[in-house]
Amino acid sequence: MAVMRMSGEAHALVRHTHQERVLRALRERGALSRGEIAEAVGLSRTTVSEITRDLLRHGAVVVVDTDAASRAGSGRPAERLALDPDSGQFMGVDFGHRRVRVAVADASHEVLVSGRQTYPESAGWPERIATAFELIDRLGAERGVHFRALQGIGIGVTGPHPRSSAPHAPEGAFGPGFAAARDDVDVSFAERFGASVIVDNNTRFAALAEALAGDGDVENLLYVRLSDGVGGALVIGEQLVSGATGLAGELGHVTVAPGGRRCRCGKRGCLETVASVPAMLAECRERGADVGSLEELASATDPVVEQVLREAASALGRVLGAVAMVFNPAEVVIGGDIARTAPVIVEQASETLGAELFPWVAANPVVRCARLADDDGATGALAALFRSSPLLADHPEPAPVRALPA
Amino acid sequence: MAVMRMSGEAHALVRHTHQERVLRALRERGALSRGEIAEAVGLSRTTVSEITRDLLRHGAVVVVDTDAASRAGSGRPAERLALDPDSGQFMGVDFGHRRVRVAVADASHEVLVSGRQTYPESAGWPERIATAFELIDRLGAERGVHFRALQGIGIGVTGPHPRSSAPHAPEGAFGPGFAAARDDVDVSFAERFGASVIVDNNTRFAALAEALAGDGDVENLLYVRLSDGVGGALVIGEQLVSGATGLAGELGHVTVAPGGRRCRCGKRGCLETVASVPAMLAECRERGADVGSLEELASATDPVVEQVLREAASALGRVLGAVAMVFNPAEVVIGGDIARTAPVIVEQASETLGAELFPWVAANPVVRCARLADDDGATGALAALFRSSPLLADHPEPAPVRALPA
Repeated sequence: MAVMRMSGEAHALVRHTHQERVLRALRERGALSRGEIAEAVGLSRTTVSEITRDLLRHGAVVVVDTDAASRAGSGRPAERLALDPDSGQFMGVDFGHRRVRVAVADASHEVLVSGRQTYPESAGWPERIATAFELIDRLGAERGVHFRALQGIGIGVTGPHPRSSAPHAPEGAFGPGFAAARDDVDVSFAERFGASVIVDNNTRFAALAEALAGDGDVENLLYVRLSDGVGGALVIGEQLVSGATGLAGELGHVTVAPGGRRCRCGKRGCLETVASVPAMLAECRERGADVGSLEELASATDPVVEQVLREAASALGRVLGAVAMVFNPAEVVIGGDIARTAPVIVEQASETLGAELFPWVAANPVVRCARLADDDGATGALAALFRSSPLLADHPEPAPVRALPA
Repeated sequence: MAVMRMSGEAHALVRHTHQERVLRALRERGALSRGEIAEAVGLSRTTVSEITRDLLRHGAVVVVDTDAASRAGSGRPAERLALDPDSGQFMGVDFGHRRVRVAVADASHEVLVSGRQTYPESAGWPERIATAFELIDRLGAERGVHFRALQGIGIGVTGPHPRSSAPHAPEGAFGPGFAAARDDVDVSFAERFGASVIVDNNTRFAALAEALAGDGDVENLLYVRLSDGVGGALVIGEQLVSGATGLAGELGHVTVAPGGRRCRCGKRGCLETVASVPAMLAECRERGADVGSLEELASATDPVVEQVLREAASALGRVLGAVAMVFNPAEVVIGGDIARTAPVIVEQASETLGAELFPWVAANPVVRCARLADDDGATGALAALFRSSPLLADHPEPAPVRALPA
């Protein structure tokens, strides 16, 4: 009997590892056919079929549809499998400077509800959190969705987000009570929903979403976002780079104008003091151009405005070029509404960046506008949850494995 | 009988995975006590003892010494185990601009022989390779060592080293026939020694060696070396960052003086045109200071020389600061003889870098001089081999595992 027991345990352990890989692929990528699973996890079709048969039998995985709509060939449509949608829900929350966005997805990556609600920029954390809770209640009521099985909550916040042991920015520098954000926000959400919470910089979440949003995943991506501030993030090998103390990615605070304007971070002449939307608006007004909003900035035909945008994009291109020389990304993505609405930004940044790289390199990184909108922080938080969540590893244990005949 | 066979196979697979982890720890770190192995691989002392007993019985591992010399406590000295030194040798080769260095270590990380030999900077690859082979023959003959069991050869070369599919720098820009280096060098060594060869930038190898040289391994390290050129490398999570096309780490070619001196890379005003040793010497002479060598540069008391060194270190500090803002390293290491012999370099670079970072961050990265000498490329190539080599995975298979009594 000892031998039988060893056999079952050891064999189950090996199969469990294979199952974990299949479940991880479905968790990270959503619905997949058996063939796509086999390719993703590097197991044979036969082994994948055996594993998915077990998972289907235990209800951890369900058939959601077939690939008939998307397939190019003429063969029989393949079933697509996904984690059981009812096995858990995931919530992504993105606290911007003036609005919160919420998206809730099931385990198959289907977004069940999403929405946004504004608050004044002066709102403190209690008000922002209350606004988010009201939004969540309203979304649930409108769609008849109950957030009864939240498996994890990812929350994006503005500004640098160092690890707990590291010092934080001065109170108020990057938002209301930023130093208190982590404690207040994660405790409030954890208590309200009884789920585990991860909190990080929303630009990092957006970068991860961007790396995963294309046709193929981008392994090495440099991301920058121009909005009320200038944030950034690095993705290497499909993982966010957090750095030694959690402060990686702060492209907005690289110096571009030594001795220049004072930045809210405490330094002078940071990229953010030149290329954030408020900085560009202020510079236009200083030069006599009458623009008061991002929309006016993007649509203005005044050559002064174009010059300001070009100078800002040029400073951005120099920073991106320096970072690209060291980090050698495949793609450089510029996010933020202004990058989408004023094409001169990506055009000029790309040109300046190109001049900063080796002239003999044929293939410089692709410089492009972000695919996702500024609200992508919530989606990115969901992507981070799907990639990091160990929660679904708790699916029902497989039944004892019987030895196959020789 | 079917059940018995499954049991043996499945159980052996699990144990084999554990064995692999133990062997990898010994391959990467050299001799370790059983306690250190347990800590490194995250297995219990009991499991590690069982595994090492098997490995000792099969001769894959041997007892090399005890930790009596290094231990602080008064307990019984613990045996230190290492891979069987006779199970293979590894060769690290570093081709600099004017010399080649060779080091050969056994599988327990013991360096058996090492030495260096100069060649003129004008020497082409055939001459450099011939010089290396002569050096290796001489070292072997002098010490009576036969390179009969080379398991791998790591070769460092100067200049950017993109992946094979990517375009290379113009012929001659970074050394003689650099574009041909990979083909010529690796084929020559592979044919001569019948071993597999990896070729990479020698600064990257040096950075890896530096990350592993301290008391504790450094997970996130930014490395720059000032010598005939200025090279650099990033280590994240104890892995070298190679980038999308293998060109990561080129700190020397970040622009610091727009429109400045022409660089051999084809751009203008790169850090290398300001902070390489030849650039600093030329600048001193241009300002009327009579210095002709690195030694004179380091020992000069002329205030003009100090000013030139400070300006170069300041430019270096700005680049390091920008990269550190994005990459958030734990340590910034400055290599090259000049950094060791002229303390003003590290001092000024550290001060400038500090001013580029968030003023409210209490713990900036440690900026320090490299621990290892300029010849560290050969050691780094060995470190890369020890970390990547799958070769020792081919040790004898474990004997069939018997089921333990219940």
